[in-house]
Amino acid sequence: MQTVEVALADRSYPIYIGEQLLQRGDLVARHLPQKRVALIADTTVAPLYLNIMGNALKASGIAVAPVVIPAGEQQKNWHTLNSVFDALVVNRCERKTALIALGGGVIGDLTGFAAATYLRGVPFIQIPTTLLAQVDSSVGGKTAINHPRGKNMIGAFYQPLAVIADTNTLNTLPGREVSAGLAEIIKYGLIRDVPFFEWLENNIEALVAHDSAAMAYAIQRSCENKADVVAADEREELGERALLNLGHTFGHAIETGLGYGAWLHGEAVAAGMVIAARVSQALGMLRDADVARIITLLTRAGLPVAAPDFGLDRYMELMGIDKKVEGGKIRFILLRAIGAAFLTADVSATALNTALAASVANA
Amino acid sequence: MQTVEVALADRSYPIYIGEQLLQRGDLVARHLPQKRVALIADTTVAPLYLNIMGNALKASGIAVAPVVIPAGEQQKNWHTLNSVFDALVVNRCERKTALIALGGGVIGDLTGFAAATYLRGVPFIQIPTTLLAQVDSSVGGKTAINHPRGKNMIGAFYQPLAVIADTNTLNTLPGREVSAGLAEIIKYGLIRDVPFFEWLENNIEALVAHDSAAMAYAIQRSCENKADVVAADEREELGERALLNLGHTFGHAIETGLGYGAWLHGEAVAAGMVIAARVSQALGMLRDADVARIITLLTRAGLPVAAPDFGLDRYMELMGIDKKVEGGKIRFILLRAIGAAFLTADVSATALNTALAASVANA
Repeated sequence: MQTVEVALADRSYPIYIGEQLLQRGDLVARHLPQKRVALIADTTVAPLYLNIMGNALKASGIAVAPVVIPAGEQQKNWHTLNSVFDALVVNRCERKTALIALGGGVIGDLTGFAAATYLRGVPFIQIPTTLLAQVDSSVGGKTAINHPRGKNMIGAFYQPLAVIADTNTLNTLPGREVSAGLAEIIKYGLIRDVPFFEWLENNIEALVAHDSAAMAYAIQRSCENKADVVAADEREELGERALLNLGHTFGHAIETGLGYGAWLHGEAVAAGMVIAARVSQALGMLRDADVARIITLLTRAGLPVAAPDFGLDRYMELMGIDKKVEGGKIRFILLRAIGAAFLTADVSATALNTALAASVANA
Repeated sequence: MQTVEVALADRSYPIYIGEQLLQRGDLVARHLPQKRVALIADTTVAPLYLNIMGNALKASGIAVAPVVIPAGEQQKNWHTLNSVFDALVVNRCERKTALIALGGGVIGDLTGFAAATYLRGVPFIQIPTTLLAQVDSSVGGKTAINHPRGKNMIGAFYQPLAVIADTNTLNTLPGREVSAGLAEIIKYGLIRDVPFFEWLENNIEALVAHDSAAMAYAIQRSCENKADVVAADEREELGERALLNLGHTFGHAIETGLGYGAWLHGEAVAAGMVIAARVSQALGMLRDADVARIITLLTRAGLPVAAPDFGLDRYMELMGIDKKVEGGKIRFILLRAIGAAFLTADVSATALNTALAASVANA
């Protein structure tokens, strides 16, 4: 088992990474203020892991109230959140009763927001079971639900007490979801870690094939990168953390434009990173060869590199309500080079148009 | 103008108290990261003060998006909150656009929770226009909406950048609402400030009659007491802040049992404080003469001192889902003496029964 620390003063917490960690009730128990939890999973993950985790918790003397909600990104809404609140009330969960999110990004975001707001905040532990959640959404305290007019529009920064990433859970993960997780892993290389990007170029097929040693290293390196960024800029106020959104402004536009859930988040981010690379290229910042390297690696990871053709106007409209808008102007995350992302509001419509035209032309 | 500071390290903020502060756009402007705000009021307060405040803000160079919602405690729900989110999206409010709550406790709590969760948190300023909100709910960062199964069940601790209490707004306040505010003012004397309790015994008629000098002193002393407590225990983790809930466990039970809005919050707290005093008396802690002093002062303030007769079982049921429950046991705030509140889970059913019987017998 590896442990990566997220350093946030009195809100610091460990990320445990390893095999068969769902069987380790003690890892959860050591963080609990009260030996009671609500264990929250969706209808996809519950049949696979709810009993394993629940029994491990009970073996450590923890009382468990299981809460199962329907699966899917479209569930990340107020209605489903409210059904979780109902279950917490029925089970008489109190201020010291921890909520445990067992599942992917939707369960983590929704459970985290429930924990941030139930009784004005209760303890919270993340047990991510998808690659995407293990390398990204479970770390850093971003919680949210969607609003009909924008993804993750309603939420809170709320840090967990611990993150437990059991790499065995990836064995049941469909290939498409592994690829979606690889999009975020590749993102860390692109924004700030050239050696990791090169390691990925040498090991991407092993990751696609679920090689467990390669996977454990990729998760650890991703969490280390994310932990560094979050420690430097917890609430995305300084710009550093915003860099983690490379590809996300375009990606969110794709997800919103297609309707939540049509593409996996990681797929939309992959296509979004290609657009960001092409905008950087159109502005004369990123070399053609680097754009090609990015597209090649994403393609080898089984990810889409072409964006849906909504037209420029619709893209602008979809991005206009993005939460990273400042002073009425959209801020973009672009690349000076592989491993060197930066934030700018200075992007011409021409460059955007060129990049979008090139990205949908390959579709 | 008086200024009371709430000392919370990097989240410290001033409470400005004085006459004609709604005309002071500069007080708001000095706290804004961006010269744009959403100004949120209800249908009761908007006709009285929205233009005055809006014009003062515009005169200070601030762009104002007004948002008006229906009045009433029953509006403190997800549906109304969502209508605020819709208005924020339509007005393209961004991460640096401040939300300003102009109104009573419902507007403050709901707007504060909107600010805590819109785009994972935006700046927030409280401009309380009721006595209750000026002396209690606008200070300390408690925000929330109600859940069908409990009051303030969904919320966040989220501090404002400033609180602006214009005592002129109290001139339009119905007498019943002034009395409701006096309940919370009397509470500060009861839990921790004997000289203030004695001052109130000498000045309660002046306060009921809206005497502005007396009112300004009562607001300032209340805010100083609340600021001290909040600075010592921001998130109600140490017990100190929980003392501010004197009368509230019973009060919430009364409000929930009658349906939100039948009694004003301060009225329910007044009757709740009498029950708490009688429980203390039944346990041999509080002298009969002190119970009588408390009842006399609340009565002179125009407040109810008798509780609705739901019966003991229903009271227990209503209090069982209170958010201050710990380890399955209800914690009560009781009085050792006037000016000396304390927290205990050690209350017999007999004492509760005696206190409730005495409290409803007077109805």
